[in-house]
Amino acid sequence: MTIPARFTEPADTTVEAPPKAKRKAAVRREVGRSIPRLESHAKVDGSAEYIYHLRLPGMLQGKICRSTVPHGRIVRIDASAALAIEGVHAVITGEDIRTLIPDPYYGPAFHDQPILAIGKVRYVGEPVAVVLAADLHVAEEAADQVVVEYEPLEPVFDEVAATKPGAPIIHDSLRPAGMFPDLQYLKGRSGTNVALDARVLHGDVEKGFAEADQVFENVFRSRKVVHATFEPTVSLAELNGSNGLTIHTSSQSPSYVRAEVSRLLGWPENRVRVRTAFLGGSFGAKLYIKLEALVAACALLVRKPVRIGLTMEEEFYTITKHGATVRIKTGMAKDGRIVAREVETWWNGGAYADIGPRVSQKSGFTAAGPYDIENVSLINYAVYTNDPPAGALRGFGISQIVWAYECQNDIIARSLGIDPLEFRRRNILHDGRPHATGTIMTNAEIDEVLDRLSDRMHWDVLFDHGSGPVRRGRGLAIGFKACIAPTTSVAVVNVYGDGSCCVSCSTVDMGQGSDTAMAQIAAETLGISTETVRVIHPDTDVTPYDMATLGSRSTYHMGNAVRLAAEDARAQLLRIAAATLQTDIEELEYRDGAVISRSGARMTMRGLMLARFGMQAGTVIGMGTFTPPYTKPDPRTGQSPQITPYWMLAGAAAEIEVDTETGRIRVTKLVNVGDVGCAINPAIAKRQLNGAGTMQLGFTLFEEMRFNEGQVINASLADYKIPGMLDVPEDLSAELVEFPHEHGPFGAKGVGETGMFSVSPAIANALCDAIGVRIMELPLTPERVLRAIRESENRPLESE
Amino acid sequence: MTIPARFTEPADTTVEAPPKAKRKAAVRREVGRSIPRLESHAKVDGSAEYIYHLRLPGMLQGKICRSTVPHGRIVRIDASAALAIEGVHAVITGEDIRTLIPDPYYGPAFHDQPILAIGKVRYVGEPVAVVLAADLHVAEEAADQVVVEYEPLEPVFDEVAATKPGAPIIHDSLRPAGMFPDLQYLKGRSGTNVALDARVLHGDVEKGFAEADQVFENVFRSRKVVHATFEPTVSLAELNGSNGLTIHTSSQSPSYVRAEVSRLLGWPENRVRVRTAFLGGSFGAKLYIKLEALVAACALLVRKPVRIGLTMEEEFYTITKHGATVRIKTGMAKDGRIVAREVETWWNGGAYADIGPRVSQKSGFTAAGPYDIENVSLINYAVYTNDPPAGALRGFGISQIVWAYECQNDIIARSLGIDPLEFRRRNILHDGRPHATGTIMTNAEIDEVLDRLSDRMHWDVLFDHGSGPVRRGRGLAIGFKACIAPTTSVAVVNVYGDGSCCVSCSTVDMGQGSDTAMAQIAAETLGISTETVRVIHPDTDVTPYDMATLGSRSTYHMGNAVRLAAEDARAQLLRIAAATLQTDIEELEYRDGAVISRSGARMTMRGLMLARFGMQAGTVIGMGTFTPPYTKPDPRTGQSPQITPYWMLAGAAAEIEVDTETGRIRVTKLVNVGDVGCAINPAIAKRQLNGAGTMQLGFTLFEEMRFNEGQVINASLADYKIPGMLDVPEDLSAELVEFPHEHGPFGAKGVGETGMFSVSPAIANALCDAIGVRIMELPLTPERVLRAIRESENRPLESE
Repeated sequence: MTIPARFTEPADTTVEAPPKAKRKAAVRREVGRSIPRLESHAKVDGSAEYIYHLRLPGMLQGKICRSTVPHGRIVRIDASAALAIEGVHAVITGEDIRTLIPDPYYGPAFHDQPILAIGKVRYVGEPVAVVLAADLHVAEEAADQVVVEYEPLEPVFDEVAATKPGAPIIHDSLRPAGMFPDLQYLKGRSGTNVALDARVLHGDVEKGFAEADQVFENVFRSRKVVHATFEPTVSLAELNGSNGLTIHTSSQSPSYVRAEVSRLLGWPENRVRVRTAFLGGSFGAKLYIKLEALVAACALLVRKPVRIGLTMEEEFYTITKHGATVRIKTGMAKDGRIVAREVETWWNGGAYADIGPRVSQKSGFTAAGPYDIENVSLINYAVYTNDPPAGALRGFGISQIVWAYECQNDIIARSLGIDPLEFRRRNILHDGRPHATGTIMTNAEIDEVLDRLSDRMHWDVLFDHGSGPVRRGRGLAIGFKACIAPTTSVAVVNVYGDGSCCVSCSTVDMGQGSDTAMAQIAAETLGISTETVRVIHPDTDVTPYDMATLGSRSTYHMGNAVRLAAEDARAQLLRIAAATLQTDIEELEYRDGAVISRSGARMTMRGLMLARFGMQAGTVIGMGTFTPPYTKPDPRTGQSPQITPYWMLAGAAAEIEVDTETGRIRVTKLVNVGDVGCAINPAIAKRQLNGAGTMQLGFTLFEEMRFNEGQVINASLADYKIPGMLDVPEDLSAELVEFPHEHGPFGAKGVGETGMFSVSPAIANALCDAIGVRIMELPLTPERVLRAIRESENRPLESE
Repeated sequence: MTIPARFTEPADTTVEAPPKAKRKAAVRREVGRSIPRLESHAKVDGSAEYIYHLRLPGMLQGKICRSTVPHGRIVRIDASAALAIEGVHAVITGEDIRTLIPDPYYGPAFHDQPILAIGKVRYVGEPVAVVLAADLHVAEEAADQVVVEYEPLEPVFDEVAATKPGAPIIHDSLRPAGMFPDLQYLKGRSGTNVALDARVLHGDVEKGFAEADQVFENVFRSRKVVHATFEPTVSLAELNGSNGLTIHTSSQSPSYVRAEVSRLLGWPENRVRVRTAFLGGSFGAKLYIKLEALVAACALLVRKPVRIGLTMEEEFYTITKHGATVRIKTGMAKDGRIVAREVETWWNGGAYADIGPRVSQKSGFTAAGPYDIENVSLINYAVYTNDPPAGALRGFGISQIVWAYECQNDIIARSLGIDPLEFRRRNILHDGRPHATGTIMTNAEIDEVLDRLSDRMHWDVLFDHGSGPVRRGRGLAIGFKACIAPTTSVAVVNVYGDGSCCVSCSTVDMGQGSDTAMAQIAAETLGISTETVRVIHPDTDVTPYDMATLGSRSTYHMGNAVRLAAEDARAQLLRIAAATLQTDIEELEYRDGAVISRSGARMTMRGLMLARFGMQAGTVIGMGTFTPPYTKPDPRTGQSPQITPYWMLAGAAAEIEVDTETGRIRVTKLVNVGDVGCAINPAIAKRQLNGAGTMQLGFTLFEEMRFNEGQVINASLADYKIPGMLDVPEDLSAELVEFPHEHGPFGAKGVGETGMFSVSPAIANALCDAIGVRIMELPLTPERVLRAIRESENRPLESE
């Protein structure tokens, strides 16, 4: 659907973009300051609040009993031994939950996931029962004593195999979530593991290939990885009065949790209160429903507060990043221009859809890359398998896609003898040109990103590839992402009786610095110091709606809402001043947290509040609502004139050393360049790029969930390695490209995911540059590199 | 100061009052419904939240060491024995607090009360030190071991004696609170125990007395009583991040607590968060600062959460109702009309002013009664003594004043041979006539109150006074009160994504039913069912400012703010409908929670939200701010054209039996009639009248704090009797007079205190009617009645 334009703030959506040269930032005091995060001190002294630490009086701890088979029917659950253990309060099963919630299936895209398994399990680790006890150790001991008997069913793990005829079917039929009209056509579809088959058609791809001078086709794969947040997932639920429920949860999406738990219970939203605190990292792991429905149901069943906090091992069984198989076929013209591209992607969504279909759809429509290609066909399959569910992970599928197209672009460039950077310059999608989705590209500084990469890498200078067993290489890659649409953010800025103020919004600060950014935006608008602004954390009873903290949308969406709310508060303060000074509002100017009249009279915010309320009293409540315009894609072509509020553009370049005797890659230099529009806080924005770059470095070099018949065999941080300080490149840097986005708050765009996009292909391209081998599958483990070297030398590894 | 009219919603203040006949209520669905209180179920099943039950992880419990002398210098505090007890974390003294807060004196009217005594103590029970321990029993044991040595000073307890030359001076000099400009002239005044000497002069009282045909002069006294709430006073403080503080407190005034604690700490308000829950009764006891500054200081000193909850005994040492001595002199004309009245009142404020000076001033200016008197002089002394502090108690001093003037009116009527009811009718202050303060009386249905009393009591029917040892009598009284001014209330009505909604305000539901009233007002305005509205409890971070829940102001002030907020939300929903239906807003009507167009299209609140935000998303935030107009009194005359937003009028009548052999009074019938404007919830309003009537019955018949050299000798509910079921009159009833107030929300005025005013004189007048004796001092204990009987018979009690 199209959101009527009148609902959107005119200042944000209807202003014509001025020429770039004019879109330089005005003089600002707070926006653009690289101040430390507001909560830095509290995080160091231990006073910062995390839900994992929360204990409620009288609460029970829950321990989840999990499926031991990847696919099977539940024949029997015997909790008698568990219940016999002293201190065990209850053992809850899916059938118990059904007494409270007749249809206990949840999910943001499909209502496919039971709160606890009912009748069937679909992956190893699926929650089957919960043991509740006041003492967590008792609950853990008892959980081991719950006996579940399964009748095994044939599993399927590979995302391509799962789409083939004859593959075991994991869900009887599809149940799209009611909130998405565009998915309703799938309702009741059966006999398939493909939850969504999303296509974008642009031009005539067959004709393009026919006219191409050369066609390249490759398949790229990436494996499942996990978010590995330091604070594990945790939720607590308690009764709130006689007919309400409060959920304390480590969630990126409190507003969604409220709506979904309300829907499950059949309650209006105002009876469910969801509050969050700081998150100890999330990266997409703590989105939508994770433990919230389960603790809510348990608390209502036993009429006591219930807490469930996962162990790190359980995180591996809760949500993962999609493994993906990408077949990419590209038609080239002699002049090095891409004339046709077809990308077919199989997304391994695991046993439950979570937001996977949206991942496949929304990252899928960018699968041709930020390139100007006349003929494009993009096909994305969101596939059910018997792996743990896959959902959002920083980048929302983009890094799997960029991995494919930027590796292939390098293959093509090398094959055609074109410098990889020049190859990309030649094909870039410039502002004003239509993207494959039909949306015109705007505010996309990809040229500048390439220029900065070139500068930083001294691309024009001859590069020493080394000799001997350790070889050196360099590579680069670019990528882009659309921001999620359509979504809304609402913010409130309260000015208190003494003129101090707060920002009240439902954006979750999970380490990305959103509190600080929102405070800077409010402070800039109100002309006060950022450090004096207080940011109130999400509590759905009182902080207004926000779609969720995801997809790098907060700075743009909530930032705009906060800016509008602060402007509203400022306008109210001006009206108070006009009334108090008995003057026209036009005679007044708001400057540096005060109103100044032409006659020189000055009223501070405190003074204005005193004037308005006659004492230190009252609240001036500024409100801001931001919903950028969006047009629903044509279901036949997947095209839309306005598919995203903005594009995130980024590039990465790497210099590496490869030990050809061990296969080990050492990244010596990593540069991440991101088009951020305007950095509200440059230091934080750079840390986002470097943090994302380092995270993707782990996914590139060694992170990989390893499975044995659906069982994760490295489900611990001892066996699943994430980057440590020694893995960080000596020369790690980030660079911000800042051309203010015409509709961003002070020109800002999101940056949380930007640094993820291009790291993997940059390193793989550098590997090829160093030793001439091309690896098509992530991660680039020493074993895989060594195998590729041996294969290239026609002497395979002994193990094979 | 005068609040400029433009700051106030025009609908509330500028509309001319229509003739009374037209001011009948419109057809309403929610307002006027006698639904049970929304939290009834939660209170019965135990799920309602009270702060007294709150425990914070890692918290310390505090036990207060209290002064054992009524007036003295602190020579030495020796905490060594206490600190030697295992488990004692710290002993905090006033000097420790000074290291954190250099000037740790607080108070709503005067900054006279130290958080812990510094140098001096001024009453028995004054907090001198606090012992902190994880275990409350350890803290209690240790508190007994803290040795404090005092150098005694001469005390003074009587409020009249304390004003005489040569009386011991309790405070060196006066320190009026900065927030009240009108008190600043007192700053630094020394050598007096009179904190405030408030006068109202109207006409020429000397001339009035000179022209009177007869002059009556009497002195009436009432003794100190206590609030006796079921939930004792409790506060907890914890650090909030590295530079903030959260206070959970049983308080009627969260907004004030935030402002005052911020002032003490020298912090902006946005660093202090104050939240409250249901109160288990309060009646004025939990206003302003009680334990909040103490727990805040302790938590900051020890960097841990600190809880202090009082015992019932400690309540007697924390806040009380003023004892008062009232000298009332009335000049009468032959025709039974009052021509002059002089009232001089000494208010026993105890050792610290708390809100006492405002009690003396604001109830004091009504001391001539709701009568039309040409010449009036009202003098009120707020007096420091060495009793525990006195503050607000349901009625804010009015019952002490009505006690005097309504007893005297009866004396005069009897003396002049005029029926008491007729006497009052003859002197009533009718609408349109100026009150002693100069404010014109409006919306005051005192005639109607008298008519209803007359009807209910069958006043015209001959009354059987009985014979033998048990005699019967009947009496009545009327009284009135001004509502506090100037004050502000702010409310928010949030409409959530599914169309459900909440009212967010800082009014504290302490049993009076404010949650239900606010929900009814919002529901009426939005055309939905009250039971679907959720009311969010005060949390100063997010619920907007309210002056406090006191003085029967919530229904009028916050009720108006909620109505305005709901109207604002409704207007926004209408605009959404107009945009969605592409029609003019004038074509639309809001009815029954939906928008209906002339063409018959109907959009529910849920549908409107979906239309606006494109999915179940967003928040429509309605705001309302209400500050009724007020004009500061002339400091010379105490007169003001607008001293109160409205008057509360009430009358009570009683039938009693007196056992002349024991002196025991049994109230057999008690009627309370209150002018409530419009009852938002008639059942609750009636319960307010009956509850207040029963409370005042206790104060009338037996409640009295008894002292021995400043020590309360009946500080327990075993020794200090409050009314039980057997004390409730068999025939207890309340009647509501409902002429909608022109500016009240749906015509409503406050009612929380109304039932207190007239009960004591009605009973005393009935006593005189029964046996011809007149008692001038409350309570009317059997001993006092018997003594009066014996004195009237010239045979004093043996004990004398």
